[in-house]
Amino acid sequence: MTALNIALIHHPVMNKRGEVIGSAVTNLDIHDIARTAKTYGVSHYFITTPYEDQQHLVRELLAHWLTGPGATYNPARKEALSIVQLADSLEEVVSNLTEQYGVRPLIVATSALLRDNTVSYADLGQRITKGEPVLLLFGTAHGLAPEILQLTDVTLPPIRGGTEYNHLSVRSATSIIIDRLLGS
Amino acid sequence: MTALNIALIHHPVMNKRGEVIGSAVTNLDIHDIARTAKTYGVSHYFITTPYEDQQHLVRELLAHWLTGPGATYNPARKEALSIVQLADSLEEVVSNLTEQYGVRPLIVATSALLRDNTVSYADLGQRITKGEPVLLLFGTAHGLAPEILQLTDVTLPPIRGGTEYNHLSVRSATSIIIDRLLGS
Repeated sequence: MTALNIALIHHPVMNKRGEVIGSAVTNLDIHDIARTAKTYGVSHYFITTPYEDQQHLVRELLAHWLTGPGATYNPARKEALSIVQLADSLEEVVSNLTEQYGVRPLIVATSALLRDNTVSYADLGQRITKGEPVLLLFGTAHGLAPEILQLTDVTLPPIRGGTEYNHLSVRSATSIIIDRLLGS
Repeated sequence: MTALNIALIHHPVMNKRGEVIGSAVTNLDIHDIARTAKTYGVSHYFITTPYEDQQHLVRELLAHWLTGPGATYNPARKEALSIVQLADSLEEVVSNLTEQYGVRPLIVATSALLRDNTVSYADLGQRITKGEPVLLLFGTAHGLAPEILQLTDVTLPPIRGGTEYNHLSVRSATSIIIDRLLGS
């Protein structure tokens, strides 16, 4: 396991009109991102949502794969989902990790836009490899809201693929970013 | 646009018991992989299935986003899905591309297992950048069947993340592989 932790933020995030909203949990975000995270030794994958009905859905899904019929049907899926945790808010994630590590983790935003105070993939990867606790944030819908960005220390540059097209799914962006940080 | 083309193979592929099967088309495989492909300038994304009912589903989905209500609701999605094409088989894909380029493309397998005759990500990326037509194959279910592998020229090494866990989704694997080939 590495010192990398990730959180998928469902509130507060932006919609296509630039308004702050909460988004619904997507089943495949949980599965795909947990599988990628487990592949690269991510320690915890937090699903962050304040909505009780959405938390209930996540708990049901996790119960199916961790202790229900899914656990014997697909043990590899159980292994991936074992690093998933629910959280009400970013503040709860940070407080949880601060308690575990004894220090507040470096909080890193990801964004489809170029922002100030960027850290390169190579530098951040080295810091994680050296054991510095890092929390990497991914936004659902149209990205992290300003009140989340205010709590972050640095931002990774956007992923660009040599074209003008800039609409990766959060599942794809997460996979590419974790591979850039920890892949060899 | 680059000289890279990709195909997602739904038949013949392997199931968890090592038997040759055909898999069902997954909605999010079409969307996520098209968005990644468009980001990196992939020329064509072939959905390969011999099943008429599955082809019908894909045609309906494409019609919704390319010419139906989806086209105005989300023009960026229309742009991504505009590179998607249906094909009955790998043979049809190869014949289509050979006609377009005037030469048979280099056919490259991807696999979660290490195979003979590998090409490195750096080497293949350079060949694509220099304009050599390449067709990259991704298997659904538990991967490409032997009869597909027999038709390939080279194989990319498996993606490993420094752990023993080796169960990426095909959506994640596709994103990571295309980024390794064409990302900067």
